[in-house]
Amino acid sequence: MRKKVITISRQFGSGGHSIVKSLAEQLDISYYDKEILDRIASETGFAPGFIEKASEYAAANNSLLWNLAMKHSPFHVPEDNPADVIYFAQAKIIKELAQKEPCVIIGRCSDYILRDREDCLHIFICADKHSRAKRILEQYGDNGKPIEKRIDDKDTRRKIYYSHYTDRVWGAPVNYHATLNSGELGEDACIQIIRKIYLD
Amino acid sequence: MRKKVITISRQFGSGGHSIVKSLAEQLDISYYDKEILDRIASETGFAPGFIEKASEYAAANNSLLWNLAMKHSPFHVPEDNPADVIYFAQAKIIKELAQKEPCVIIGRCSDYILRDREDCLHIFICADKHSRAKRILEQYGDNGKPIEKRIDDKDTRRKIYYSHYTDRVWGAPVNYHATLNSGELGEDACIQIIRKIYLD
Repeated sequence: MRKKVITISRQFGSGGHSIVKSLAEQLDISYYDKEILDRIASETGFAPGFIEKASEYAAANNSLLWNLAMKHSPFHVPEDNPADVIYFAQAKIIKELAQKEPCVIIGRCSDYILRDREDCLHIFICADKHSRAKRILEQYGDNGKPIEKRIDDKDTRRKIYYSHYTDRVWGAPVNYHATLNSGELGEDACIQIIRKIYLD
Repeated sequence: MRKKVITISRQFGSGGHSIVKSLAEQLDISYYDKEILDRIASETGFAPGFIEKASEYAAANNSLLWNLAMKHSPFHVPEDNPADVIYFAQAKIIKELAQKEPCVIIGRCSDYILRDREDCLHIFICADKHSRAKRILEQYGDNGKPIEKRIDDKDTRRKIYYSHYTDRVWGAPVNYHATLNSGELGEDACIQIIRKIYLD
């Protein structure tokens, strides 16, 4: 079946964002990343910074990381678990975007949220740690934390968040049509492969 | 760098063998699967049936599965660990094949054995359990064992064998250029994607 929407999930530092940007430009369709954050903010009343933290830290009520994040949060925390409120708003927004028009959606469990739509193409971008470290330092600079630890921490947080809401293993190839290694293929080849699958 | 050799690793029942056959035909290059087995037999003196078992069961000396396989083996077991003898012969043969001509090599840790060659393209084929079960029953028939157990047992054996000799996680996407889900993409799309990466 011809695909309409592409979801791109990615490891931190794998070049996923820049792949999505060029891919959407080449296909002349919209892509959604930060805009989803703004829409969640408008839907839930939470500040974008808070939403980002909630999507980074584990959402389980009994998660140590999540409890720490909540404890140090400067925002008012309502009775409902804020991570759940955010997740449900995000799921609603992603479904609406996919319904509206052909587009590319980055992360935010979009592969899972749109799993039952046969017109969605799900891609995961990974890379070796050396390439990821290089890209992270170039794009975001050195924040003083050892780069290996930055990568591992981010992977762990995404893994916990994703598995909490989807009951799936984050990055398991069976959840995607294709998993591309940008460290080996290069960003441009990844774009051309995704274009081919989408357009064929 | 333009690629010369393709290694295809695959989950049991993912259609990897039929993908390799058509791919090699379309590219007009050789593919090696059972022929490697015959060459290992000729190199080591072990019977092909024994080699297949040794490549299926865990090679670790202290592995329960491996010890069981050895205990019930009708073949003479020399002092050297036969699994090691077989692995080293297989590594030598795979390196020779890759040196000789453009070709496709199936499984047998070939992605790891040829990891340092920049002219090798490494692909992993996976699929959801439902598609795998359907293909296994169609191709190999029902052997009386529950299909879920057949799949899990084969996955476990390949995982143990691969990790024993490579110290890597079997099927981890970072070890391949691309991991393709034949259950979602279909065999033909997998072939076209691999062709594109190989020829570009």
